[in-house]
Amino acid sequence: MRILCTNVGSTSFKYQLLDLQPGSSNRFSSVCKGVVERIGNSPSYFSHTDSANKDELGQTQGELEAADHLASVQHAINLIPDLEQIDGIGFKTVFAKDIWQSAVIDQSVIQALEAYIPLAPLHNPAYLATIRSFQQLLPQVPLVAVLETGFHQSIPDYAYDFGVPRSWMEKHRIRRYGFHGASHRWVSERVPEILNRPSKDLKIISCHLGGSSSLAAIREGKSIDTSMGVSTQYGVLQSTRVGDLDPFAALYVMTQEGWSPTEITRQLMEDSGLKGISGISGDMRDLESAADSGNDRARLAIQAYCYGVKKYIGAYTAALGSVDVLAYTGGIGEKSITARSTICDGLSWMGIELNPDKNQQNKPETLISSTDSRVKILIIPANEEFIVARETARLLSK
Amino acid sequence: MRILCTNVGSTSFKYQLLDLQPGSSNRFSSVCKGVVERIGNSPSYFSHTDSANKDELGQTQGELEAADHLASVQHAINLIPDLEQIDGIGFKTVFAKDIWQSAVIDQSVIQALEAYIPLAPLHNPAYLATIRSFQQLLPQVPLVAVLETGFHQSIPDYAYDFGVPRSWMEKHRIRRYGFHGASHRWVSERVPEILNRPSKDLKIISCHLGGSSSLAAIREGKSIDTSMGVSTQYGVLQSTRVGDLDPFAALYVMTQEGWSPTEITRQLMEDSGLKGISGISGDMRDLESAADSGNDRARLAIQAYCYGVKKYIGAYTAALGSVDVLAYTGGIGEKSITARSTICDGLSWMGIELNPDKNQQNKPETLISSTDSRVKILIIPANEEFIVARETARLLSK
Repeated sequence: MRILCTNVGSTSFKYQLLDLQPGSSNRFSSVCKGVVERIGNSPSYFSHTDSANKDELGQTQGELEAADHLASVQHAINLIPDLEQIDGIGFKTVFAKDIWQSAVIDQSVIQALEAYIPLAPLHNPAYLATIRSFQQLLPQVPLVAVLETGFHQSIPDYAYDFGVPRSWMEKHRIRRYGFHGASHRWVSERVPEILNRPSKDLKIISCHLGGSSSLAAIREGKSIDTSMGVSTQYGVLQSTRVGDLDPFAALYVMTQEGWSPTEITRQLMEDSGLKGISGISGDMRDLESAADSGNDRARLAIQAYCYGVKKYIGAYTAALGSVDVLAYTGGIGEKSITARSTICDGLSWMGIELNPDKNQQNKPETLISSTDSRVKILIIPANEEFIVARETARLLSK
Repeated sequence: MRILCTNVGSTSFKYQLLDLQPGSSNRFSSVCKGVVERIGNSPSYFSHTDSANKDELGQTQGELEAADHLASVQHAINLIPDLEQIDGIGFKTVFAKDIWQSAVIDQSVIQALEAYIPLAPLHNPAYLATIRSFQQLLPQVPLVAVLETGFHQSIPDYAYDFGVPRSWMEKHRIRRYGFHGASHRWVSERVPEILNRPSKDLKIISCHLGGSSSLAAIREGKSIDTSMGVSTQYGVLQSTRVGDLDPFAALYVMTQEGWSPTEITRQLMEDSGLKGISGISGDMRDLESAADSGNDRARLAIQAYCYGVKKYIGAYTAALGSVDVLAYTGGIGEKSITARSTICDGLSWMGIELNPDKNQQNKPETLISSTDSRVKILIIPANEEFIVARETARLLSK
């Protein structure tokens, strides 16, 4: 079975064509993959790689004119081989009203995605545009929405309820949802495989740290709590999105300045988080290099970010009662030696002890805890495409 | 030195006259104390106790007409003996713009309290009314504001910064402040005395749990983090105030319903927290009795509250690196056997183990941890009046 997986941002479109291995329901191989960036900003860029042929002959890249997501989908379709062999397209969709899990995309799913545009203003419009592009260009191929909330459906009521008035829950479904479901699910499945221990015996804290970050507390393979909320802006500091914030701060500033909810929302999404504290950038790589050059605000942003992650690790240790594995994934989790060591620093009383040399080596899929550490610390490269492909195949095989 | 300490709510006025012991700068004895309740709701109630004469002769109580705070202050003044011996009046004030610590009240302090009415809409107007009543009725007595934020001034920047745009910090001073300073400070001083260990050797998590709840992480006698934010509504679930909430939830509901910031603020303060989840009451005693009678929503509210406190205990364990003492104070912390045991349940891996029998006995100022518990668990009765009196005396002795 061939599944095209998509990962869509407001100005980017990533895709990967995966082939289900014969005889295996659990593994895929890559046929090709590519990306279009700076959609809507002329010139846009693209790259495309034939997975079987990774030398120069298998790669193309360059500039293109991609005014919108339709143009970038059209571009990708021109490069993807054997379109008639594609059995389904999976979308790592974010948030839909009253739909948690994966679903074959029909009009009701589209309406549910539209209904939550105000809560996922960067993600949902881009996904809707991309879904409509595929409906137009490849009308015969079934589409599946693999929602990022799905993995967190197991969170118990006492952990997902905010203390809002009942009507907010009943009418507007205000509660903790959580996101990065494909990533945390991959961690929950991969950790037991690596350690060769059954999932039911493991308590895992999964740290998906990147441009967007969240943590999940996982017991017996199921999410029991996570740091994002109704929106993807909540929890630890995000790149340019605010993270945890006293809601009365937003209401106060709004009233004092006479700003609209739209303006406040924009500022809390575009000018906040790591960028808000550092005043220079929301990108951890920029911040690390600025901090190395003595920029105090960059240093402060990194410190605040790591401190926030550390507190969630403590909170989830308490929620789980104990921890067997701390797993780092995502761009920062996999690559930032500084972030991983700053987060783990001082946690040995809680059984978390990094091996500095192994941390420094920065290898994918490695154990980086000390031999004495009660908690095993692992780097797990993100593999959301695999989860999206498997979910898509599962739904289409029904 | 004789100090009158006040604790003012929107419809209540408590006072206690304390006498500084000769030769001691650190202990006070009570002369008398009293309360006026239901201010503005005819009939109001009062009680007054002569501390030297606690039998019937020393007590008066009954109804009165107290239309406002001025009337209740006038009533108290009529009952308090030897007014001319009062050296100062201390106010457990909550929140003033750009003033953290204790301050002798002058026009600038009043303006600073006025400036933050929007962030402390229940507390600041009541304190301002009471301060003005004393200025009118006892104009010769100096007044001192002991701000609830004072104890948290030691919180480091990476812990107090929210990820808001820089202008929010610079112009509006949006950051974590924290409250219940008098209560957490009392815990930070009393714990070392009880354990006969120096403050500098102790890491304490102070849980002030009551109608209003917050936790503080204390290292070497200093607060390094706390759960409330810009407002007293943040952190763990409050009685009728929301606690931690994704700020985008408030902005979303506001836009969907077309509500004003004032209406949203009202709902998040009056209809939320324990009352929001349970739908019946914000009072833990009501909820415990409803839960005992099989009310599932009451049970859920208690569980969500205790789970929230548990997560903060975990977070502060990580922030401190280790913990020596977990201290319970405040109405719920001192009295709720259920809350204490639900919070500590499952934390033995983290070194926190309750002795169920000692917990059940519910005695003031007792050790309630098991002998094996790495962390000592203590009940510390709140003594905010002492801190307010000492601060007031200290400022007036300068």
